Amino acid sequence: MNRIAIIGTGLIGTSIGLALKRAKLQNVEVVGHDREPEHAAKAKKLGAVDRTEWNLIRTVERAGLIILAVPVTAVKEILEVTAPYLPEGAVVTDTASTKAEVLRWADQLLPETVHFVGGHPMAGKELSGPDAADPDLFKDAIYCVVPSVKASERAVDTVVNLVGLLGAEPYFVDAAEHDSFVAAVSHLPIVISSALVASTTRSPAWREMAKLAASAYRDLTRLASGDPVMNRDIMLTNRESVVRWIDLFIEELKRYRALIAEGGPALGEEFERTRAAREQWLRSPRTIGAAPGPRVPGMGESMMAFLFGERLARASQEALRPPKPDENGKKSN
Amino acid sequence: MNRIAIIGTGLIGTSIGLALKRAKLQNVEVVGHDREPEHAAKAKKLGAVDRTEWNLIRTVERAGLIILAVPVTAVKEILEVTAPYLPEGAVVTDTASTKAEVLRWADQLLPETVHFVGGHPMAGKELSGPDAADPDLFKDAIYCVVPSVKASERAVDTVVNLVGLLGAEPYFVDAAEHDSFVAAVSHLPIVISSALVASTTRSPAWREMAKLAASAYRDLTRLASGDPVMNRDIMLTNRESVVRWIDLFIEELKRYRALIAEGGPALGEEFERTRAAREQWLRSPRTIGAAPGPRVPGMGESMMAFLFGERLARASQEALRPPKPDENGKKSN
Repeated sequence: MNRIAIIGTGLIGTSIGLALKRAKLQNVEVVGHDREPEHAAKAKKLGAVDRTEWNLIRTVERAGLIILAVPVTAVKEILEVTAPYLPEGAVVTDTASTKAEVLRWADQLLPETVHFVGGHPMAGKELSGPDAADPDLFKDAIYCVVPSVKASERAVDTVVNLVGLLGAEPYFVDAAEHDSFVAAVSHLPIVISSALVASTTRSPAWREMAKLAASAYRDLTRLASGDPVMNRDIMLTNRESVVRWIDLFIEELKRYRALIAEGGPALGEEFERTRAAREQWLRSPRTIGAAPGPRVPGMGESMMAFLFGERLARASQEALRPPKPDENGKKSN
Repeated sequence: MNRIAIIGTGLIGTSIGLALKRAKLQNVEVVGHDREPEHAAKAKKLGAVDRTEWNLIRTVERAGLIILAVPVTAVKEILEVTAPYLPEGAVVTDTASTKAEVLRWADQLLPETVHFVGGHPMAGKELSGPDAADPDLFKDAIYCVVPSVKASERAVDTVVNLVGLLGAEPYFVDAAEHDSFVAAVSHLPIVISSALVASTTRSPAWREMAKLAASAYRDLTRLASGDPVMNRDIMLTNRESVVRWIDLFIEELKRYRALIAEGGPALGEEFERTRAAREQWLRSPRTIGAAPGPRVPGMGESMMAFLFGERLARASQEALRPPKPDENGKKSN
């Protein structure tokens, strides 16, 4: 029996579990753990895990793949606590929204015998908890793969295979780049959403205004309904990039303010330009491009190879070997 | 034959036409005009109007109700051109996003014999044009009603009835208040969306970042895909309030910036607070409250009374008279 441990059975962990179970992997046991026992129980009830385990250390026992689906700062705690108990050769991955700190912790805390490959699925919902889970949550999404420099190719393969099994598209990226990109397209939007809620709801006229708030307001504030602990952790582990992007965005708002105050034709041109830029983004293919990008083996192939143990994995690896992560990162750009 | 003229058969005008036609009003002809003849032809093809009229002045001929569903600055041009030709007793309404300027233009340009009652449905889409039209676009939406001080009760009734026929909820509000409220909940969000597109797409790393942009980015930039002319006009006719709200929002962003840079527990509390504030808004009833709010007569009742002419309208009005607009505004708060 091979074991996959999912630590954190919230929205992401439970969705991964549902996708794993749907794949009907042979001889694989999925064990779920959550700090909140009712979350783990719920994941079990939904069929996302075969069994739950209350003790964190026992959760990682004999696990070949450990998936940390917890807010970013909890990744550190869990690595600290479990490090001495992680099986030799185990592959550890996470799903947290920032990667530089996570990779630093993994390098500091994990023994040489354990392979860390960071992950970040570019999918989510403002809802949290196992009830919102969906095995198709990651379908066609970009899934960032950020291997530790010490991770083996086999470990990288394993995570790439997991990504393929989730229906997502692996995207190799450097941790620092990852954090700077998501600061702009994910973390700044969270700050904007929350700041919009804060500035409007504190207005003395909010009670009246609220009646006129419609779909525009709802959409722009959606991210303010996200998990507060996760949002805080995201900001605190990506402080520098987020602050830089807030500054850039404030400059942009000042430019708009000037265009509006001035009232010339430049404002209309600006709206034309940004509409065109957004339409272009919407039309651009969401996939990373067919060419030498990371190969995603068919399921039941090397996912099983990995789970069947080192010897068979090594044999199958010769056939399946993808380009080195670094090359992938470059080639897929 | 009674006539309703729809000037501007884009998303809003065509949606109103579809709702009017669906109501199968007896002895009513709906005439559509658009500066772009193919838009008017499309509205006709969709069954939103009985016939199209190329000549603007002929469009308002013998019309009892004239609906201006055009961007805000076009309202001024149309009032200027049509004013001398508007039938005595005609009711004119608009759907533009700002109201103070519109009411000023109506007071300056319209003869005493014509009654202006401003309107603003709090519903829309980022799509524009008649193809995106939907007779249910306004269903359960708040519809601001902003009568000119010179408008008769009958005229106010007529517009309230139209709102009821669209399935929307009339909300009486003063023009200055309206503009200040929508600056916060509608116009600032447009500026934010556009500024976010501008700042990200101009980054040298945009090509890479774009791959990681997912639902958060898509939602927050949705309004940047709105009609650029309409967006420009909105800003230019609500300059003072929008600029004030941009300033307030920049202050709020700076507060978030400080909380993030500082890294203390206050950031988590802030995210908690804004989440709770948004959840409360989501839970609050979208309707304005049952109590003495404006009465929405059953269709075929006073909509027809209005269209049957002044004498019958006056008779039915005795029975249907809603409270004065001012009182409504207060009572419904």
